[in-house]
Amino acid sequence: MTVGERGELDLVAWIRRRVPPSPPDVVVGIGDDAAVLQPSRGEWLVQTADSLVDGVHFERAWCPPAAIGRRAVAVNLSDLAAMAARPQWLLLSLVLPANLPLADFEALIDGALEAASAAGAALVGGNVTRTAGPLVVDVTATGRVRPRRLLRRDGARAGDALWITGSLGGAAAGLAMLRADAAAQGASVDRYLAPTPRLREAVALAAARAARSAIDVSDGLGAAVRQLAEASGLGARVDASLVPLLPDARQWHERRGEPALDLALASDDYELLVAMPARAEGRLRAVRTRTATPLTRIGVLTEDRACVLHRDGVDEPLPDGFIHFASRPR
Amino acid sequence: MTVGERGELDLVAWIRRRVPPSPPDVVVGIGDDAAVLQPSRGEWLVQTADSLVDGVHFERAWCPPAAIGRRAVAVNLSDLAAMAARPQWLLLSLVLPANLPLADFEALIDGALEAASAAGAALVGGNVTRTAGPLVVDVTATGRVRPRRLLRRDGARAGDALWITGSLGGAAAGLAMLRADAAAQGASVDRYLAPTPRLREAVALAAARAARSAIDVSDGLGAAVRQLAEASGLGARVDASLVPLLPDARQWHERRGEPALDLALASDDYELLVAMPARAEGRLRAVRTRTATPLTRIGVLTEDRACVLHRDGVDEPLPDGFIHFASRPR
Repeated sequence: MTVGERGELDLVAWIRRRVPPSPPDVVVGIGDDAAVLQPSRGEWLVQTADSLVDGVHFERAWCPPAAIGRRAVAVNLSDLAAMAARPQWLLLSLVLPANLPLADFEALIDGALEAASAAGAALVGGNVTRTAGPLVVDVTATGRVRPRRLLRRDGARAGDALWITGSLGGAAAGLAMLRADAAAQGASVDRYLAPTPRLREAVALAAARAARSAIDVSDGLGAAVRQLAEASGLGARVDASLVPLLPDARQWHERRGEPALDLALASDDYELLVAMPARAEGRLRAVRTRTATPLTRIGVLTEDRACVLHRDGVDEPLPDGFIHFASRPR
Repeated sequence: MTVGERGELDLVAWIRRRVPPSPPDVVVGIGDDAAVLQPSRGEWLVQTADSLVDGVHFERAWCPPAAIGRRAVAVNLSDLAAMAARPQWLLLSLVLPANLPLADFEALIDGALEAASAAGAALVGGNVTRTAGPLVVDVTATGRVRPRRLLRRDGARAGDALWITGSLGGAAAGLAMLRADAAAQGASVDRYLAPTPRLREAVALAAARAARSAIDVSDGLGAAVRQLAEASGLGARVDASLVPLLPDARQWHERRGEPALDLALASDDYELLVAMPARAEGRLRAVRTRTATPLTRIGVLTEDRACVLHRDGVDEPLPDGFIHFASRPR
């Protein structure tokens, strides 16, 4: 049975039955012309959209449908985390080839709902349409944040240290492993198939007033550092020896004789890159009691607007990572 | 020059320069991880997403890029109109073939901005990514509505009359004309290329307390009547002789010996279908002074859950219109 043998309304009805009961801030959920939502006072709304395309961000040959759904939601929640917003509502816009097996459609939705539920977000609407081309999953996520806790990209100052949550390289290594063998497993594959948006970490950093600015690592560390620095009118200096690599990813690259750090710099790990004033480092204790996630200082923001990587005693331009169209395909 | 010769960040930067200055309820617009928005008190938010896919909803061979952008925004605003919400914010998620000419990209954005500006909505964010497949434009629209003015699908009661704004058939006829001749012009072609979401009409109907329920005609009148009736636990009876057809579309079909009404019933004209109690008809005067748009009574909602079309003295099942996957392709 394929989605082409079901009607759009049947597919939406299936999703509607699958969605948990609405929280009280959802006045009208799936099934009307639009969702109706009731935000509370004293908070700003934070909204983002991001899409995954078959053949660009994943391939159905080696990416299970549940992982496509989970990842589509996670990359959007990661953008909310980068603003220190708490996720509330999701819209799911599905562009489906008619020959997509119905079981894959259902697994994709269940993966999306699993990621939503883990973050406390409600699926409130979206769209289903067909295509003669590749599968596209486009998600819109809306969150809430108290005005004083918002973390913007352009809030950093010269001298702020750059910190990173967790470790890097897992997503790029996991992707390479899956391409070589669709049955590959391990810590790197998990990182690629089920990235964890750093929502609790972001809220804890903002609540402790430890962070001044943040961005998520969605196109590699190089691009994230450059974008945060440029938005703040600054440059940056990253110390290669401090960048935390996922051990599984490092070993895999080293066994193949590849430069683990260079690949990690372009890996979309959905960690948070945070700018923090030196005097705020004492507040990290409060953050660490609320999350078990490692936080590592990897560099500093500079008045000089260049972005450099300090490696083996030499400064080199910071690699740009993965940007659509212009750089290497994946 | 194609979009593939520009980077994702350059394309986003171009959009950012093109967007008018943000209204005061936009705290952070394009350029950060997500947009930050400030809703006001005593209002609900209304959110919808809808995508247009090349080869399904339009073809680049005969649909100018500005019309793709305009239409992508308009179909979403139409969903807000169907809830009587006032549009506020838009996210634009673009899935682009790398060989899309840069001039087409720019015209598409300008078309979207034109439709946004006409409705008082601000483009606050979105995403740009590439594809090896067809162009996809996915829009998320967020509006606001006072709780007492919301028009839900499931609010109709037996005996309520069914009213339609404007006229039907233009979009389907315009689409057929463009497929036959990419240079076709006229009222029907305009209806297809630049549908007008019935925002003022919806707000006026809700403010006058004339309407009890509404839906937009996005998949044809047949589907709209059926969906509104089913959501309200009712059936409906539509009188074929009362359905207002766009004269240009009627003439075109008649010249070709085609049944104009049947095609109009499956035409995505983005008119509003409204359920109105008989006692509210006197309030239409207030609506008519606020908009010049015709409003026509075409049928009634019934306790009997069947949906029928009364034509030439005979009742027949109401045709379903266009639903993705299950029914006729277009």
